[in-house]
Amino acid sequence: MKLVTFTIGQRKSVGAFENEKIIDLHAALVQHLTEVGEGRAKEIANAYIPQDMVEFIEGGQTSLKYAKKAVEFALQAEDSSPFIFNREDVRLEAPVQKPQKIICVGLNYREHILEMGRELPTNPVLFAKFANAIIGPEDHIPHHPISEQLDYEAEFTFVIGKRAKNVNQENALDYVAGYTICNDVTYRDIQRRTPQWLQGKSVDGAAPMGPWLVTADELQNPSGLNISSYVNGELRQQSNTENLVFSVQKLVEFISNLMTLEPGDVIMTGTPHGVGFAMEPQQFLKDGDTVRIEVENVGVLENKVQKVEK
Amino acid sequence: MKLVTFTIGQRKSVGAFENEKIIDLHAALVQHLTEVGEGRAKEIANAYIPQDMVEFIEGGQTSLKYAKKAVEFALQAEDSSPFIFNREDVRLEAPVQKPQKIICVGLNYREHILEMGRELPTNPVLFAKFANAIIGPEDHIPHHPISEQLDYEAEFTFVIGKRAKNVNQENALDYVAGYTICNDVTYRDIQRRTPQWLQGKSVDGAAPMGPWLVTADELQNPSGLNISSYVNGELRQQSNTENLVFSVQKLVEFISNLMTLEPGDVIMTGTPHGVGFAMEPQQFLKDGDTVRIEVENVGVLENKVQKVEK
Repeated sequence: MKLVTFTIGQRKSVGAFENEKIIDLHAALVQHLTEVGEGRAKEIANAYIPQDMVEFIEGGQTSLKYAKKAVEFALQAEDSSPFIFNREDVRLEAPVQKPQKIICVGLNYREHILEMGRELPTNPVLFAKFANAIIGPEDHIPHHPISEQLDYEAEFTFVIGKRAKNVNQENALDYVAGYTICNDVTYRDIQRRTPQWLQGKSVDGAAPMGPWLVTADELQNPSGLNISSYVNGELRQQSNTENLVFSVQKLVEFISNLMTLEPGDVIMTGTPHGVGFAMEPQQFLKDGDTVRIEVENVGVLENKVQKVEK
Repeated sequence: MKLVTFTIGQRKSVGAFENEKIIDLHAALVQHLTEVGEGRAKEIANAYIPQDMVEFIEGGQTSLKYAKKAVEFALQAEDSSPFIFNREDVRLEAPVQKPQKIICVGLNYREHILEMGRELPTNPVLFAKFANAIIGPEDHIPHHPISEQLDYEAEFTFVIGKRAKNVNQENALDYVAGYTICNDVTYRDIQRRTPQWLQGKSVDGAAPMGPWLVTADELQNPSGLNISSYVNGELRQQSNTENLVFSVQKLVEFISNLMTLEPGDVIMTGTPHGVGFAMEPQQFLKDGDTVRIEVENVGVLENKVQKVEK
């Protein structure tokens, strides 16, 4: 299933993207349960399909089961049903809005490290963003007037599905809710002016995410997926997740042995060769540029850059 | 006021520490409002004094006003009132349980930087912890079997009171809810095995916090406060917050110009000279050690180290 967070009017909800339509999962489930004679339809829907994705993910396999029921019901309903929307009539938001953690992985594409003549690292480099950085697939990337060195990083991203502590890589995928795409937007000079990268990485709007969360039952193998990025249509990055030094499974093991991962935690797996900072001459993002990231079997995340006046 | 998060039985609540007693602010306010004839006493108390500190802080000055009313009422009530507890009958938790951000400042004590022969930095070094690291003043610091280099860092800490974006240092203190103490517990070898510190900093239990949040109206000047730490009674760190290169005001300005700060966000201002890693010979924490941190006009945070079997 492709899970989305969407808004229509003032209401933000969890939905599914099916047949080019958006299904409001909560509303569809209420209708379905009501029709089968369930007296507590709304309360049950509230419990299993809350409006926030992190809370939905906390519901685990049971919430997913109810979501599937809701989709099945909606696919047999009329297109004019009040829980079915045309794609263009809703606004897609970042699928995960307020994760407790956003953990990013540094250098993690094998061919890039080897071509630079470096040794493969023994431990992944981990750093953080905070939720203030998250924006959605229909938002513009704000270019704040704090630096001219705005850069992109295409990243295959996974989201934790249940509490994970000391997990082994063998069963690590049991702890993954699904997959999405992030752009690890970075202000390079700010990233590098101190030894720690956080300040150049967690600027407001520096984590575009979307367009949806592909559930782990639909994408069973996170390896072997092509990933590429384009700026204004020009190919900039291209690789495949089989080149990750630290796979999704290995990252779940590594990180969960340091810190307890919670449902909704977002892990960005690193970016391939080809960021603007490394080009000769360097190319940074500017007002009006479009950054497009494609990940095979996941989707496309495309955002425009928009200058912010202070 | 000294705001606490405390548990009694299964219930976690926001309280105030007054006259060696703990006042349950929500319960006291309900009683007070009921006595003055307010028909919606419980609902009003729910709105202004929720059970979670971050939500309480979101209530801003109005919530603080209601909290003061509750304390005033409680101080005139009998000690046997059901909203007044002896200190030893409750468990104090970390005052802030689930902040959206925990931002830590690196080298920030002037005398320590100068004695090392270094230049004062132009920009603060910022790095992150996540909420999984938070433990309270009555918890033990878990020593996970991932490293032998467990170390302490005494830190004067402030908590954001309202949304802050592009704030100037001149009015920065308007955005501070109050002050507490943190121990920036660090696994040194894990901190240093990659260029980014996160993995050695955000291990479960690596952010003891407490014992309370001293509200900004009670502690109006965050400069000029003595800070010290002891391991098993031996003085290890001693300085004064007047030695901070980047003051509380400057940090609010600096950080809020990069990222929007939200109510409840925790900012740890850095640690003075004297951590175990820098001693000759190096001294790391071991099972049974006690780390005590004192900050003038704030309080004492003392935690014992406890080895965790994997």
